[in-house]
Amino acid sequence: MDPGREDEVPLAATSPESRRTRSNGRGKATVGDAPPPAETVVSTKAAPLPTGGWKKGIAILDFILRLGAIGAAMGASILMGTNEQILPFFTQFLQFHAQWDDFPVFKLFVVLNALAGGFLILSLPLSIVCIVRPLAVGPRFLLLITDLVNMATVIAAASAAAAIVYVAHNGSQDANWIAICQQFTDFCQGTSEAVVVSFVAAVFLVCLIVVSTLALKRT
Amino acid sequence: MDPGREDEVPLAATSPESRRTRSNGRGKATVGDAPPPAETVVSTKAAPLPTGGWKKGIAILDFILRLGAIGAAMGASILMGTNEQILPFFTQFLQFHAQWDDFPVFKLFVVLNALAGGFLILSLPLSIVCIVRPLAVGPRFLLLITDLVNMATVIAAASAAAAIVYVAHNGSQDANWIAICQQFTDFCQGTSEAVVVSFVAAVFLVCLIVVSTLALKRT
Repeated sequence: MDPGREDEVPLAATSPESRRTRSNGRGKATVGDAPPPAETVVSTKAAPLPTGGWKKGIAILDFILRLGAIGAAMGASILMGTNEQILPFFTQFLQFHAQWDDFPVFKLFVVLNALAGGFLILSLPLSIVCIVRPLAVGPRFLLLITDLVNMATVIAAASAAAAIVYVAHNGSQDANWIAICQQFTDFCQGTSEAVVVSFVAAVFLVCLIVVSTLALKRT
Repeated sequence: MDPGREDEVPLAATSPESRRTRSNGRGKATVGDAPPPAETVVSTKAAPLPTGGWKKGIAILDFILRLGAIGAAMGASILMGTNEQILPFFTQFLQFHAQWDDFPVFKLFVVLNALAGGFLILSLPLSIVCIVRPLAVGPRFLLLITDLVNMATVIAAASAAAAIVYVAHNGSQDANWIAICQQFTDFCQGTSEAVVVSFVAAVFLVCLIVVSTLALKRT
């Protein structure tokens, strides 16, 4: 849109010589015989290296945060997916075996967290591209959109599971729902841990989005 | 960071005369006696109006989406907060009066949606600032961060309520939780509608974030 800025990314990769030539072409200083003004124009625009370095730091931070988010999302999925408890004694319930896939919400939790973790792993190459080319806009924008979707997914899964864990812990007198955690203590602790880890993944994703926005932002 | 672009926002508000003076100051063309190159430099950079117009359109879209999000979040809060049902007959339950504040999750839902709606109303003046000054970065970034927090809040509230509504509709055989919706049909329909409206607010907020990112993005 702004013709004065559309060649910013190529500028970072070209040599000072070609840069001066391009500036001359834009400023039309080669038509006459006044090179000094054109050279001073170049000197006021020729400092993309500090910006690139700052953006590269942001890209590396993005990569590290992404690894953390992958670990947390996958960890939450595995924690929940391996969660079961068999009671050694007979209770007032008919069954004495609690497993994560008894509850559809926990199934959804495992699937959504695994999906988010998978998409985050798939986004790692893009993140590396952003480290190599810190000023590229396209990959960064794609990362931001996928992170946004992943964040919504992880928060939705974690909140839904948290609501069920709350009912399992406290029950609901008005609805006659029993607090099953009074029997299945280990099972409930496992689900609570998985929910907490999933919220950690969500925090990582929020940080990722803020970092991506900072990288995209006009200064 | 890039000294050649930091005066872009003031440029959009100043007249062509002052713009030329500033460019002369940067290019140091006033030291010598070669005004023509400085003037041609101005002519290649002096088209911020199309960008400004495009950004202004985005800012107006932001304002409209924001009104939609306010309506949806407030609507969800009110729908849930006025939801109760008194059964005309005696059932197997001890109580025959279902109200939204019997369930802590629904209380949280009302509070979080009202909070998000309130913050969205508070952000309206900032959105108007962005319409008036489409190239300003600070207000836009602030809007993006608050929208991100609002989106996380609304999605968390809606998902948690959705999980409880699911259990209320289908019950859970393994946990001996009864499907209370078989008795309280109107109450359950009210909560379901509130959850759907809350998810609509979340969709509006996702659109708002994407729009803000587009407005912030380097082209």
